[in-house]
Order: sequence, then structure tokens, then C-alpha cells
Amino acid sequence: MVQGKRWVIGKPFEGSLTDANFHLEEFSLPNLNDGEILVEAVYLTVDPYMRMAMISRPAGDTIAGEQVAKVVESKNAEYPVGTHIVTSPGWVTHSISNGEGISKIDPNYPKDLPLSLALGTLGMTGRSAYIGMTEIGQIKAGETVFVSGAAGAVGSVAGQMAKIMGCRVLGSAGSDEKVAYVKELGFDEVFNYNKVKDIDATIKGLAPNGIDVYFDNVGGDFSMMMIKHMRIYGRVVVCGAISEYNLTDPQKYPSIFCHLLFNSIKVHGFTNFHYTQLYPKAIAQLSEWIQKGQLKYREDVTEGFQNMPKAFMALFLGANKGKAIIKM
Amino acid sequence: MVQGKRWVIGKPFEGSLTDANFHLEEFSLPNLNDGEILVEAVYLTVDPYMRMAMISRPAGDTIAGEQVAKVVESKNAEYPVGTHIVTSPGWVTHSISNGEGISKIDPNYPKDLPLSLALGTLGMTGRSAYIGMTEIGQIKAGETVFVSGAAGAVGSVAGQMAKIMGCRVLGSAGSDEKVAYVKELGFDEVFNYNKVKDIDATIKGLAPNGIDVYFDNVGGDFSMMMIKHMRIYGRVVVCGAISEYNLTDPQKYPSIFCHLLFNSIKVHGFTNFHYTQLYPKAIAQLSEWIQKGQLKYREDVTEGFQNMPKAFMALFLGANKGKAIIKM
Repeated sequence: MVQGKRWVIGKPFEGSLTDANFHLEEFSLPNLNDGEILVEAVYLTVDPYMRMAMISRPAGDTIAGEQVAKVVESKNAEYPVGTHIVTSPGWVTHSISNGEGISKIDPNYPKDLPLSLALGTLGMTGRSAYIGMTEIGQIKAGETVFVSGAAGAVGSVAGQMAKIMGCRVLGSAGSDEKVAYVKELGFDEVFNYNKVKDIDATIKGLAPNGIDVYFDNVGGDFSMMMIKHMRIYGRVVVCGAISEYNLTDPQKYPSIFCHLLFNSIKVHGFTNFHYTQLYPKAIAQLSEWIQKGQLKYREDVTEGFQNMPKAFMALFLGANKGKAIIKM
Repeated sequence: MVQGKRWVIGKPFEGSLTDANFHLEEFSLPNLNDGEILVEAVYLTVDPYMRMAMISRPAGDTIAGEQVAKVVESKNAEYPVGTHIVTSPGWVTHSISNGEGISKIDPNYPKDLPLSLALGTLGMTGRSAYIGMTEIGQIKAGETVFVSGAAGAVGSVAGQMAKIMGCRVLGSAGSDEKVAYVKELGFDEVFNYNKVKDIDATIKGLAPNGIDVYFDNVGGDFSMMMIKHMRIYGRVVVCGAISEYNLTDPQKYPSIFCHLLFNSIKVHGFTNFHYTQLYPKAIAQLSEWIQKGQLKYREDVTEGFQNMPKAFMALFLGANKGKAIIKM
């Protein structure tokens, strides 16, 4: 019998998270039935959406999440020992699967790229950027695109994509270091929203004729203000709302409906799980751009399963630099 | 020299409107230059959007609006005396045009229908319903559609369209009389939002699996609540926000972004002036439905130019029954 470890909810998630919200426990995995495989995590990921996914879930529930894992025991000929897969058993070191809802790392996965990218630029965050800019935002060459959370795992890919596709790309980030990184990625203009005195005037200065597509990773005050900078036919792509996830007493805003109405603006939220038909196209395109050197990525790797909660909480402090990855 | 009359702003529009916001004056029209025509209003229209269009405009400005007019003097061979046109000179009895921005009543305009429909079901309000349900809302047969302001000039057409196109159609209106009218039009379910005790529970009861398309004419509290009833991939078509137009101290609401995000919902405002390429198709389709008896209309006709402000203010009291038209 194999022993695994898992992170479960300690205290239910409400407001800002602390160590008390997380509890590490051991558990035993049963023997395999025919058709099943036992896998061991190689890389795990922490992402802001997990905060919302676990809302109102009770203590003891395993925290949700994806991982790259390796088959260590197999009673399923499709997945021999040694196969690498992407699976979503939550924050666990070991899990059993019957093959449903898992996917092999593609045989064409570039050999020179780390497998952890399957959780980032070649995984959920990359797909989110791709789906958001194409299907949802429908960016066109020559348009002005603004990306909030521009240094983040999704924002950094989204902005680079818009550049590759011929747009003028503006962005905001929360520190000078992040601003410098985003400029390296090729964004046309970036500012530190924590330092700029008048954000509204700054955006007006950078885009006096308005924004065509606002790729939103933050929500809250910033996004409510951005809506007023949208041009006629503007599209707000709501990909994340990290500033809202930890709020217990959410702020209130005047209705945005009149503004949407008179400028024919669309505000379109999306979750990439609702657009699985676009995954293969997204991954093929993103891989091509990475291999041609047009799309850069950066990972912020934390070593050790025991450090997952710390890496997760850091996301909400704006402390991470690149896609947050946990290495076993 | 011809004398005309026009309604101009008395006191700038702010908050609820009263007689003091409107001032009737006479004015002289100059003689025609070559290429110009003098037209006289036959039917005028009052619509809620005018409240927003005139916001922050000073006293003395002519109030904006469309009319069906007849050419009474012509120095333009394209528009001989007697031609009927649709033009937007504002709330005036007489105006001069050089032909720009006006349109002749189509020679195929059904002879048995009143010309005033060119300001309603075969004009702006009909087009808004058509564009909102097709281009913006992309309704599909079998979907559940909810129309607020269901008895209104736009809502009544929007709901009938959705029925013709194979949807299940729910609606809300502000009086029992309106509810009865909307039921006559063939809506599947309608309720009086002023009488129902728990609107939220009522909607849940009528659409336990949620709403695919919400065609919104009202905005405010009602619409913020409706967003929570939207299904995955739901579309909120923001066509009007009449409950918000007269507010001086707008109510505030929690951000809707997280909800849009997790259910992949689109909130899309539109103004039909931004979709002129769809006008011919809209009018052709609506005419066909009217002539086949599939699309019913109702007009609420006020006689006399002097009564325009009264007819306009009535829109915001929910007092009108059908498309508000002024007959000269």
C-alpha cells in the first residue's frame, strides 16, 4: 500500500488566507484495479482561480489543482510506467486514475522545454491567454490592447500574443521590477500602478483615443475605471479578478450598463474549461511561437510539496515573478 | 419665410423631468439653397434614449429625435414635393435638409401599414430588437430568453422575435394590463414585477435551469439580479437601462466580474446606430413578419406637437401602452 500526502482545507477559505487555512495530511492509496494507474506528482501549480474554486468548501476537502505526474505503477496498457501525464487530482503527491480526464504529454512536446510548461505557457495559463485574445477578445492587427496584471502568468503571454498579432500593447504591473520585465517582453508601454499618482490620467495619456481590447486579470477598482477608457465596439476580456477573490466585504460600484450601451461595448468573462475545443490549436500555436523565440516565458519555481500554501498565498501579495510552479 | 416650432431644453436635464425642463419656441427658417428641401413633420417619436442623449446639454438646445416628414418645398430633384422621409432634426415641426442623413420611406413599404411604424417596429425600436436578438444575443432555437420591459416598444418586438425563432420566452412588465398584453403577444410566461413578492424566486421558478439570453431594457437592480440567473455561455443584451437614466445619485452594486468569469457570460451593450449595416435586413425581416401576421405591434399615439414633453415624461412612469408616437 502506497502512502501519499495531500493538502486539505484547514479552516474554510474566507478573507485573506493564512497558514491555518491549510492542513497537510498523509493518506493511504488502495491497490490498483484493472485499467488503473498510480501516478506521482513531478510538478504542481498554484493559480489564483483555486481561491474561488475552493470557496465555501468545508475543512478536510482536498484543494483543487493540476499537476504533471509520472506513472509509477500501471494496470492500463495505454499508460505504461514512466509515462508523463497532466492530471487534476488536487494538491496531492500520489493519485490513482482510470484514464478519464487526464492527458499524456504530447509526443510532439518540444524536448528542449521543461515539462512544467504544461502547467503554464503550454497549459492552463497559456491557453487562457490564447482563448481570451482570440475567441473572446477577437483582437485585430492595429488595435490598442491593454493588459492588467501584465507580468503575471496569463498577462505576460496575453500581451506578447497581442504584439505578435500586430497590436499596440499597453500594460500595468505592481512593481518596478515587474514593469522592467514586461518591457523586456516587448510591451509598448507599461506602468507601475502602485507608483503612478493618477492612473486614470496615465491611461488617458497612453491611449488618448481609447482602448479596443482590455484583457483583465485584476477586476475591482482598476477594471471599473478601465471601462471608461474603452472605445466604441470595445471588448473587455474578463480572464481573472484577483483583486476580488479574497474580499469578504466586496466594494460596490455604479452600474456600468449605460456606458456599455452608448459605446456598444462587450464585457465577456470566460473560464478556459468552457472552451476545450480550442486547446489543441492554442497549444500548437503557443509552442510554435516559443520555439521561434517570439514568445518568452518565466517560471517562479518553489521546491518542495510542503511549501505549496506559501507559494499560493504569495500570488495574492503580488510577490511571484512568472508562473508559480512547485517542484517535487 | 416659413415659421416653425421647436422644443428646446428649458432647464438642463437632471433627475426626474418636469414641465420646466422643456421650452416651446418659434423660429424662422431661411429660404432654400439649391439642393435643399423643406420638410414638415407628420409623425414624431419620443424614446427613452433621448434622456441620455440630452444629458449635460445646455438650455436652448433643440431636443434630439427622429420624425417622419413630408417634403413641402424642394430644390432637390431627388426629393420632390410630397415625398415622405425619415429624418432626425430633433423635436421640430419644420426643418431644412440637403439630403444628408435622411432616408426616403422605402417604395416597398407596405401600403396597408401606417407610416408611423417607420419610427417604431419598422424603425429604430424594431431594429434595436432585431440587432439585439441576432447580432448581439445570437439566440438559437430551444434557448430560454428573458425580456425585461416586455410590453415596451423594443421589448414587445424582441420577445415576439424570440418566439418566432423557436425560443422559450419569459418576460416582466410593470402592470397587470401590460402583463395581459404581453401574454397576448405569445410570451410563454410573464409577471408583474411591481406585484410579485420575491422576484428572484419567481425567476428561479420560471427558469430553474437558468437563462440563456437576457434582453435588458431596464438596467439597475433588476438586471444585477438577472445576471445571477444566467447559464454558462449566457448573453446579456444591454439594449436600454431606463431605470438608470433619471438617477442623480446612482445606486451601487458589487462587481459582477467573478460571476461573468466562472460562467463564461457575456454582457454586451449596443446602440443600433453602430450597426447600420444590418438595417436593411432588419426592416425586410420585420416587414415580412408583420405582413404574415406573426409580429404584432401597438402604438400609443398622442395628438399635437404641444404634447411632446408630456408623452416623453410618461415613458419614465411606465404609463405608455405601446410605441409612443406624436401625430401632428
